Amino acid sequence: MKPTLKVLKIGGNVIENQEILSHFLADFAKLEGPKILVHGGGKAASKLSEKMGIVPNLVNGRRITDAETLEIIVMTYAGKINKKVVSLLQKNGVNSIGLSGADAGIIKAAKRQVRKIDYGYVGDIKKVNADILRQFIDNSLIPVICPISMSEEGQLLNTNADTIASEVAAAMQQYYDTELIYIFEKKGVLASIDDENSVIEHINGDSYFELLEKGVIADGMLPKLKNSFDALKKNVSKVLIGNTSLVTAKKDIHTTITYNNEK
Amino acid sequence: MKPTLKVLKIGGNVIENQEILSHFLADFAKLEGPKILVHGGGKAASKLSEKMGIVPNLVNGRRITDAETLEIIVMTYAGKINKKVVSLLQKNGVNSIGLSGADAGIIKAAKRQVRKIDYGYVGDIKKVNADILRQFIDNSLIPVICPISMSEEGQLLNTNADTIASEVAAAMQQYYDTELIYIFEKKGVLASIDDENSVIEHINGDSYFELLEKGVIADGMLPKLKNSFDALKKNVSKVLIGNTSLVTAKKDIHTTITYNNEK
Repeated sequence: MKPTLKVLKIGGNVIENQEILSHFLADFAKLEGPKILVHGGGKAASKLSEKMGIVPNLVNGRRITDAETLEIIVMTYAGKINKKVVSLLQKNGVNSIGLSGADAGIIKAAKRQVRKIDYGYVGDIKKVNADILRQFIDNSLIPVICPISMSEEGQLLNTNADTIASEVAAAMQQYYDTELIYIFEKKGVLASIDDENSVIEHINGDSYFELLEKGVIADGMLPKLKNSFDALKKNVSKVLIGNTSLVTAKKDIHTTITYNNEK
Repeated sequence: MKPTLKVLKIGGNVIENQEILSHFLADFAKLEGPKILVHGGGKAASKLSEKMGIVPNLVNGRRITDAETLEIIVMTYAGKINKKVVSLLQKNGVNSIGLSGADAGIIKAAKRQVRKIDYGYVGDIKKVNADILRQFIDNSLIPVICPISMSEEGQLLNTNADTIASEVAAAMQQYYDTELIYIFEKKGVLASIDDENSVIEHINGDSYFELLEKGVIADGMLPKLKNSFDALKKNVSKVLIGNTSLVTAKKDIHTTITYNNEK
């Protein structure tokens, strides 16, 4: 039987709040077994953009990334946020190593082709190098991955952090029984967007399509669930969506997603 | 006999000029055998500081690093410059991995004590983890190290890149016969600061003290030579100081520093 690997992804709301981030990372440090942390950071990038007089341009939640914006993103994701997370984990006794997709060539991507919209320096993932990530884990290093990938030509590319987590979880499945854990500010996928307590506890392939048809899943939740099912299709065993309690023994109510009916 | 390891350090003048940097990295890619690249980047950090309305504060060439300045430095060194160098090397077929001192805990430092001057978040190196750097090299990864270290308490610290290169070279000496190569805009240590062609081709412990007494070595050259001799005292076999041609087969005239009289 393969060992279990947890791939956790934290978003802007966890990263922005110093207290929540510190608590989360202290809990993450205690989490047993192989693990990988993926972080976003769009909010911090937008803040830096504004400080520098560059207005962020988002279309469908995706950042239009010109050369100037790419530089800000690289500084924020690979610099500020990645090293903050790595150093806080080191403080908690976790020998973490911060990585962009360029480092050790772990995430190869292709620049998104221009169709209706030119997203600029945005990457669609082609391949995650599971062998090198496994080498790090075998050497007791905990990868902390920021949402930047790289083209075959060595071009850095802005890439959605949820998608990176999904693709990393899928690639690692060849060596591990992988769980993908999306952590954000809500308790899970909500049946009613305004009711924090309407968490849908289980979703599978069948109920996903029902929810889609009813329009329950919309906006920011759509790509997260697409990424979840992309991972499940590539044999990731399950996906959890919820708040930071997912990293503790006493989990709040949350959403568990499986491909078939099993929990 | 131990294999040879080259530790190269490039400074702001090489990094700032896109054409020089690209050429240098293409040449670095061709350099055979184990190698580590250390980069500075103070000029880019000053530029970003100014853009953000923070006036850089340098005393004796060392940056006074308050919390705000540290954030800029981390973004610039670990983000912008490190990922630019890593991605350009990947483009040249070198499987590089960007590292700050926090990543994999490779450079532990202590926050500099306040005496006459409070340097702020500046680190004096305590220990370089040669085992992990060697693991990377054994796994065919080329470390690209930015000048940020970390305290035992997980505090990121601004650290002089020349010193990092010197300490890395010294620490790696246990596994390799290490050469330290400082690359900057001049051809080497100059006997006459205004004469580009007055390169002193060889310096050893004896001639170093003579040069110091005569006041030939001054300003920016003082810490570079101190770092050179610190490395030589820790058994680094030799130190070269010169321009980017040092990474090519056809080297310009340059300075070679050894501890004793041998070349």
